[in-house]
Amino acid sequence: MKTIKAKDHFLYFPESDLGFFDALIKAKEYSSYFVLVDENTENHCLSSFLSRYSLPQNLEVICIEAGEENKHLSTCEGVWEALSELGADRHSLLINLGGGVVTDLGGFVASTFKRGIDFINIPTTLLAMVDASVGGKTGVDLGVLKNQIGVINNPQAVIIDPVFLSTLPANEYRSGYAEMLKHGLIQDPAYWEKLADFQQIHTHELGDYIYYSVSIKQKVVDQDPLEHSLRKILNYGHTLGHAIESYFLANENKTTLLHGEAIAIGMIMEAYLSQQLLGLSEEDCLHIKKVFNAIYPLVNISKEDEQAILDLLIFDKKNKQGKVRFVLLKQIGEPIWDIEVPQETLHQSFAFYNNH
Amino acid sequence: MKTIKAKDHFLYFPESDLGFFDALIKAKEYSSYFVLVDENTENHCLSSFLSRYSLPQNLEVICIEAGEENKHLSTCEGVWEALSELGADRHSLLINLGGGVVTDLGGFVASTFKRGIDFINIPTTLLAMVDASVGGKTGVDLGVLKNQIGVINNPQAVIIDPVFLSTLPANEYRSGYAEMLKHGLIQDPAYWEKLADFQQIHTHELGDYIYYSVSIKQKVVDQDPLEHSLRKILNYGHTLGHAIESYFLANENKTTLLHGEAIAIGMIMEAYLSQQLLGLSEEDCLHIKKVFNAIYPLVNISKEDEQAILDLLIFDKKNKQGKVRFVLLKQIGEPIWDIEVPQETLHQSFAFYNNH
Repeated sequence: MKTIKAKDHFLYFPESDLGFFDALIKAKEYSSYFVLVDENTENHCLSSFLSRYSLPQNLEVICIEAGEENKHLSTCEGVWEALSELGADRHSLLINLGGGVVTDLGGFVASTFKRGIDFINIPTTLLAMVDASVGGKTGVDLGVLKNQIGVINNPQAVIIDPVFLSTLPANEYRSGYAEMLKHGLIQDPAYWEKLADFQQIHTHELGDYIYYSVSIKQKVVDQDPLEHSLRKILNYGHTLGHAIESYFLANENKTTLLHGEAIAIGMIMEAYLSQQLLGLSEEDCLHIKKVFNAIYPLVNISKEDEQAILDLLIFDKKNKQGKVRFVLLKQIGEPIWDIEVPQETLHQSFAFYNNH
Repeated sequence: MKTIKAKDHFLYFPESDLGFFDALIKAKEYSSYFVLVDENTENHCLSSFLSRYSLPQNLEVICIEAGEENKHLSTCEGVWEALSELGADRHSLLINLGGGVVTDLGGFVASTFKRGIDFINIPTTLLAMVDASVGGKTGVDLGVLKNQIGVINNPQAVIIDPVFLSTLPANEYRSGYAEMLKHGLIQDPAYWEKLADFQQIHTHELGDYIYYSVSIKQKVVDQDPLEHSLRKILNYGHTLGHAIESYFLANENKTTLLHGEAIAIGMIMEAYLSQQLLGLSEEDCLHIKKVFNAIYPLVNISKEDEQAILDLLIFDKKNKQGKVRFVLLKQIGEPIWDIEVPQETLHQSFAFYNNH
């Protein structure tokens, strides 16, 4: 079994060798065990989890509603109350089995319940495997503003088991794939080129790519766990991407975009900003646009949407003194952070995206 | 000026020497400043704070409703939204000016806003000065269950300035005094004897006693910051005290007890448990009861109340596997933690208290 060692825990990539799990949950004398799922993972992952892994008897399942729109404090409150009523104490273990909403929210719930209990994350979507699994970010949204409330706190372990991907819908698969493409863009041109050829990626190779993407992210996080500097590069495509995601989430007349779909747009637009401000070549910029547009749905962003999206940028967590600061690419594999962008250039980046 | 050094910050005990404050808030280049107050500290402390300390121009005040019944997530949500709307970013500073509700809740709000911003605590009640000021516990209540949600995270600094005590009501003063009596009971028999003579404590000595109490608590916390062992001794009187406080808070037919009033009862009852289970002398046990009953209101606890209070013990944060575990006294100054108590003895402790 492959593993990656983070500062204070391991990420496990099991295949058939699941013996480690028993040792893991017996490493501490937990008083009780809880599994947090959402409606989707309750239906599609829970039974395979329970049959595949050897679990203790005194295990309770807590289920939340699925979807980003439930990544809120009111959902946390329900889970805290359930834990409390089911007799969880400081020595209980919470296992988060699900996508990023479950692992981010469950991590926050565990980190704050009775001032912190242990938790294990088992991401079940490609997005959660390659992104939320690394770096200890936990949190929930505040209104439509993504991940405004949370802490940085690591789980006891992360288990990345591709068995759970077998029931993942295609659009969710592509959503996670966007983060893998980002890993290539910010750290490894060859990996980017490989993944850019989306149709040629075979399922049997996926485990290796997941491992590689997680390794890239973990190396960045290890060097700057609290995101004072280098870790910001992981936000490539996310400054505009988050604002677009929030705007579509808040707007009842718009389809909700998946995270990967939103940051795909963000990566196209920020490639344009990179070309204008840091000299990324036009060829690379157009190639980035072509790759993402071939995988992700084209989204119509009107002039009215454009201003509302720009207005949301003031809530970006990387801002300082009201200044929005981007991560842009000098070239593929070479990101620069804390770049301020003129309003005019921001508007042009929408035009660049809309001109499919 | 006296100071106490904690692991990663200082506690300041200023008198007239306030120059340190300017250096403190300029130590980091904060992008904006926020002061959290409640209605009481807005009325009684804010203007003296603003005139006494030299504060930057870009400072906004956020006010919450006063009282333990507002130490809830919904209040946090209001403060997070206010911070968000007022343009707070990761480089903002939150100054919590108030009693334990403000410093506990404000500490939690800061620790989780955009995954954590800096905060400074300025306790304005005796209770907050000698108790909440030390040890980095932040949090809010879940329903009536006290401090169930929170994190352990230290402020950048704590400023303990007795000037704010001049407007403190007498019952609030006595509430804080209960924690100081506890410091004597668990660590220093001479300090206990000194404070036991409540009528003989003069206002001009209070600053010294506060400093001494804070020193006792800080020494305990330094040895066991995450409360795996020794730190539990600070919970003397709190296992029953918290349950009593929660019960009176939840029950509309009962007066709400101040924290110190509730733990005073808890300390009397746990003195009885100490006598029965650890051999605390009867003389000391009766003396403890006499001292607290001379300072704090006698509270009527019926048989019906008794069972409801005992039912709340299962939510105590020190529990393990459903077992309630007490901190009791072998003798004054010598506490032992993780003691289980038979139900029968618990019932007797109520009788001991009720037999004024």
